Amino acid sequence: MVDTAQRPTPSRPNAVDTDTGPVRVAGDPDAPRIDLPALQHTLLGTWADVRLKARELTARPDLQRIEGQSMADHRLRVLDQLKILADNGHVHRAFPVALGGSDDHGGNIAGFEELVTADPSLQIKAGVQWGLFGAAVLHLGTTAHHEKWLPGIMTLDVPGVFAMTETGHGSDVAAIGTTATYDVEAGNFVLHTPFRAAWKDYLGNAANDGIAAVVFAQLISQGVNHGVHAFYVPLRDETGAFLPGIGGEDDGLKGGLNGIDNGRLHFDSVRVPRENLLNRYGDVAVDGSYTSPIGSPGRRFFTMLGTLVQGRVSLDGAATQASALALTIAIRYGSERRQFTAGSDTDEEVILDYQRHQRRLIPRLATAYAQTFAHDEFLVKFDQVFSGAAATDLDRQDLETLAAALKPLSTWNALDTLQEAREACGGAGFLAENRLVGLRADLDVYATFEGDNNVLLQLVAKRLLTDYNRKFAGADAGALARYVVQQTAGRAYHGSGLRRLGQSVADLGSTARSVGQLRETGTQRALLTDRVETMIAGIAQSLRNASKLPKKEAADLFNSHQNELIEAARAHAELLQWEAFTRAVESTTHAGTRQVLTWLRDLFGLRLIEEHAAWYLINGRLSGKRAQAVTAYIDRIIARLRPHALDLVNAFGYAPEHLRAAIATGAERERQVEARQYYRDQRAAGTVPVPEKPACRS
Amino acid sequence: MVDTAQRPTPSRPNAVDTDTGPVRVAGDPDAPRIDLPALQHTLLGTWADVRLKARELTARPDLQRIEGQSMADHRLRVLDQLKILADNGHVHRAFPVALGGSDDHGGNIAGFEELVTADPSLQIKAGVQWGLFGAAVLHLGTTAHHEKWLPGIMTLDVPGVFAMTETGHGSDVAAIGTTATYDVEAGNFVLHTPFRAAWKDYLGNAANDGIAAVVFAQLISQGVNHGVHAFYVPLRDETGAFLPGIGGEDDGLKGGLNGIDNGRLHFDSVRVPRENLLNRYGDVAVDGSYTSPIGSPGRRFFTMLGTLVQGRVSLDGAATQASALALTIAIRYGSERRQFTAGSDTDEEVILDYQRHQRRLIPRLATAYAQTFAHDEFLVKFDQVFSGAAATDLDRQDLETLAAALKPLSTWNALDTLQEAREACGGAGFLAENRLVGLRADLDVYATFEGDNNVLLQLVAKRLLTDYNRKFAGADAGALARYVVQQTAGRAYHGSGLRRLGQSVADLGSTARSVGQLRETGTQRALLTDRVETMIAGIAQSLRNASKLPKKEAADLFNSHQNELIEAARAHAELLQWEAFTRAVESTTHAGTRQVLTWLRDLFGLRLIEEHAAWYLINGRLSGKRAQAVTAYIDRIIARLRPHALDLVNAFGYAPEHLRAAIATGAERERQVEARQYYRDQRAAGTVPVPEKPACRS
Repeated sequence: MVDTAQRPTPSRPNAVDTDTGPVRVAGDPDAPRIDLPALQHTLLGTWADVRLKARELTARPDLQRIEGQSMADHRLRVLDQLKILADNGHVHRAFPVALGGSDDHGGNIAGFEELVTADPSLQIKAGVQWGLFGAAVLHLGTTAHHEKWLPGIMTLDVPGVFAMTETGHGSDVAAIGTTATYDVEAGNFVLHTPFRAAWKDYLGNAANDGIAAVVFAQLISQGVNHGVHAFYVPLRDETGAFLPGIGGEDDGLKGGLNGIDNGRLHFDSVRVPRENLLNRYGDVAVDGSYTSPIGSPGRRFFTMLGTLVQGRVSLDGAATQASALALTIAIRYGSERRQFTAGSDTDEEVILDYQRHQRRLIPRLATAYAQTFAHDEFLVKFDQVFSGAAATDLDRQDLETLAAALKPLSTWNALDTLQEAREACGGAGFLAENRLVGLRADLDVYATFEGDNNVLLQLVAKRLLTDYNRKFAGADAGALARYVVQQTAGRAYHGSGLRRLGQSVADLGSTARSVGQLRETGTQRALLTDRVETMIAGIAQSLRNASKLPKKEAADLFNSHQNELIEAARAHAELLQWEAFTRAVESTTHAGTRQVLTWLRDLFGLRLIEEHAAWYLINGRLSGKRAQAVTAYIDRIIARLRPHALDLVNAFGYAPEHLRAAIATGAERERQVEARQYYRDQRAAGTVPVPEKPACRS
Repeated sequence: MVDTAQRPTPSRPNAVDTDTGPVRVAGDPDAPRIDLPALQHTLLGTWADVRLKARELTARPDLQRIEGQSMADHRLRVLDQLKILADNGHVHRAFPVALGGSDDHGGNIAGFEELVTADPSLQIKAGVQWGLFGAAVLHLGTTAHHEKWLPGIMTLDVPGVFAMTETGHGSDVAAIGTTATYDVEAGNFVLHTPFRAAWKDYLGNAANDGIAAVVFAQLISQGVNHGVHAFYVPLRDETGAFLPGIGGEDDGLKGGLNGIDNGRLHFDSVRVPRENLLNRYGDVAVDGSYTSPIGSPGRRFFTMLGTLVQGRVSLDGAATQASALALTIAIRYGSERRQFTAGSDTDEEVILDYQRHQRRLIPRLATAYAQTFAHDEFLVKFDQVFSGAAATDLDRQDLETLAAALKPLSTWNALDTLQEAREACGGAGFLAENRLVGLRADLDVYATFEGDNNVLLQLVAKRLLTDYNRKFAGADAGALARYVVQQTAGRAYHGSGLRRLGQSVADLGSTARSVGQLRETGTQRALLTDRVETMIAGIAQSLRNASKLPKKEAADLFNSHQNELIEAARAHAELLQWEAFTRAVESTTHAGTRQVLTWLRDLFGLRLIEEHAAWYLINGRLSGKRAQAVTAYIDRIIARLRPHALDLVNAFGYAPEHLRAAIATGAERERQVEARQYYRDQRAAGTVPVPEKPACRS
């Protein structure tokens, strides 16, 4: 355990003297204390037991990454690790009980995303096998498919490929070029790649290991294109050679995740039996006639894609874990590392005592907490939909919107946090042995796979607009109303006291009152909610005539607001995280923990308001004076959280086997102790060389 | 050459109708055209000839990186590449004419930083050998040292190490632990590492190749510590084994730059001749008496470190090149790649026509231009100081402040730009073959080596504070006055019409006027300058009593403003970049080029104002209405720059051999042409499968 000496934070002369509550500093015996075991348990969330079991696995050296392995060796190692996971059943929770699984969807994801701390390549390759390839057979196929193929998939006897993305189409799956044309004479489908851009690409397991694939293609029968459907397609024979008509190539080295053999596939009139169509949402009879339980091709397409939302759920969780790991490393190092004497002739300052260092790490810690709580709620929602406990169309849509909102923020934030942590550890942070650079390299692609972050946020914005427009059409308010647009635009502003904050105050000296207000949950909620609502209402107003315009003009009009739309979606996602954080605070009973979490939640909320201060000022929601109070109060909370920073990262609960970073597990402390002792001994012995006296020889 | 069809940007209904100047769109025959060859030459800067020669070198495959090499192979390859550079003299420009160099300091750096496009490891390893190890002998040693050691350094017969940083001290070099104690009996120095934290660390050439080093150590003679000095120390014998008393280890795998053998060194009472002290700024006589041409130990220390400023100069240039390369790749790809039909039933949109995509890339292009121009001025300043053309103490201090201001912004910006470019290229951007991920990994450490970016910005802020305080003490205004603090705080605000912008305008409908104002160079300058001045004045006011406080309290007071200080320094650096951009625009004679560059400069300036809009609003410099006009006008300029984006990246002048990214050199275009032709043929032949008609079977 880290036992770095903590010094009281500076008393901050010149800071705004505003806090009306009790001021507590670390040296203060009345300072709140965190109940660490309880907080650890809270952070583990709803599937704490699964996570603790998973962490036993991820502590095993044979499941961990060896930094610096060649791509070939890394790939072999991860394939072997997948066999371990298949053997011990860790990856079977989501599969049917009848086949040896446990129909446990939430627990499955919880266990799966923990793998990121062992090796992100392991997490993602397991995700390809069981979360994409296996899940496609499970969710898009029917009983016969399950019985025939799932056992081999579960045991890894059949490593497989999820062949959706093409070189030419990533985000726009509906436009893929691969065709599956039903040949009524032969009674089978002909899979074909019509041009180079339609090669399947970036597919895990495609370069080497996959012996079968679920291939997405335009289903054509009787001259009609029924849209994208999934087909089970054998790829390679027992020797590993491609079957006739199938070709491919290796994607080669990537920016990260090099334990996975990503590659390309193409099909030259490859025939598969009619029964290989995964036919849950659409089927072709022997005579070529097409039937589907979903009449609308559009809704059918989104339903099929929607069954694969778990990829986004697990990326949100894995990215959050990576952020937590990075902050644990950087904050432990920052609590031990010393540099520059400032307030003393002999003692160098602990770098986390520098204001800038605190500003770099502690707000990101607040964000990691917000994400952790939001992710757990997200996972519960996912479990409800996939277990059938709450699985209406509306629930599914809400889940997808939630996924499209949270995954971009957490994956981007992981990159930002890993980079800041890397820089905060200086040269040591750049060494592979301290893990930050490797994690960052691996997590990079999380921002664009399983849905490009910008595209996902645009989907969220469209949903918000739809809900907004529905309300004004007098229709059912729509499910997202539960998340945001509960009120007509402006209601939060006009009805909740925000006008007072926005007033161009002549009340000098009232900063105390405005800080008091800013700390109120209701004020933060109102400010954050109001921003989302007002932005969406403004865009809706600008786009109100779009439906009457010719297609090209409507597209141009929409495009001219695309940036605003994405910003509104981000604001919505931030609000979701803030709400989840607030619920977590409100359900905390231990007084000390609750106090510290409240500060951390305030920091998270006020940082968002600070970041978007220009918006609040322009729209008259905050006066200049109040906006300044936000920043001053943030400085104050950060200083107050400083003494708790170590507890707050230790609450993530990672053991040294999970961290595996020398600088976070004792090396720096030892060095500091030794160096300080050396100088102390010198001073005691009177052998310190005297400093040169300034002369004026030149 | 890229010949992507460009469509006119949307006419932007609902945008603020404000521009009083001529509206020009791409389809408009009156639209300005860039004089591409002339702009290419401008961007090459003062040492265009050297850069063009360097680009012949960096186009050679044998000097380029092979992605995916093992660390061992990569190290060997880069060492061999260094021999090529030594043989052809590319790296000798800064050395004395007498020894075969050409005393050309600016040209040396210009040629050196171009190497980043071949392989950042090559750039940095060459920098270690000739820019740090060699330059230390050159600048800290005297003639005898030059004659004895420089020839072997120049030819690479003596690969060497620049042993300054220790595990325990990076930013605070003055506090390193290694000692060099003069033994008057033996007449030599004893180099010693007293504890683990004093091991030299992260040193290029230390793990394998270095057979000598310049070691920085506390010089102790006659019981007095004269501070940090540099010593020439042989490290390894002919077999590559460490000499007696010397030990070390390999830093192992890093986040990037793995072509360089970074490692650690430690010394157990290693003796070197008295003459091995590089004695330009301090010498020890046989009897142990110490002399120096610089009386103040502090000033001596900074003078010695200051001779090594070229590291920062070259990182600023290399980071700028990496940004330019990344934008060339992403903008070419974005001009060819298509995704989603929006305004048409058959044609997908070119992704750079999406507003969001433009917002992601075009402002970063403006920044890359600003950095390019600022870097060239920086290099001229460097050359003046090092050639002696303008080398007063003040010039040296200005140069160091400039380095400390520009290097952080350009290195951070390179990481940001490389990442955005990577994401903008989706999965293709994550493949090593498209280079963005490799460059980002290599450039990562540029943010913390040769001066941690946050520490450097704090130095800038201290300098700004000093100048500010000097002025108020009535003393000489100080050199930085030339850059920023030319006026007493508030003068820009009160004296230049900014009050009008800040007025809480009731003048609805006057947006046109405010946009007109925002486009004025004087307005942008005033706004940017005012912010720096006001921030510095505010901090100075808060710190005014610090010198009267006890050390600890003064340190705490300073610390409580550290974040603001760093933000003020950043604002200063942004202003320097803006000023350089403005000078470049003003010296452009070709009307079309000048028009486009003016838009790009406006975009750079207004983006800064938008980013800091909250500050301008809080401080009454902009009204809410004007702040909104800033954003609306930015949208407008971006749309206007869109048709010039390809020209603007092509003006960086990189050939396919420099880009070496398939997606930027034709692959994507070929795929798009083939796919579009396929569908066109299908439509012409009437063989397109008809889309399914929505039914209501469920």
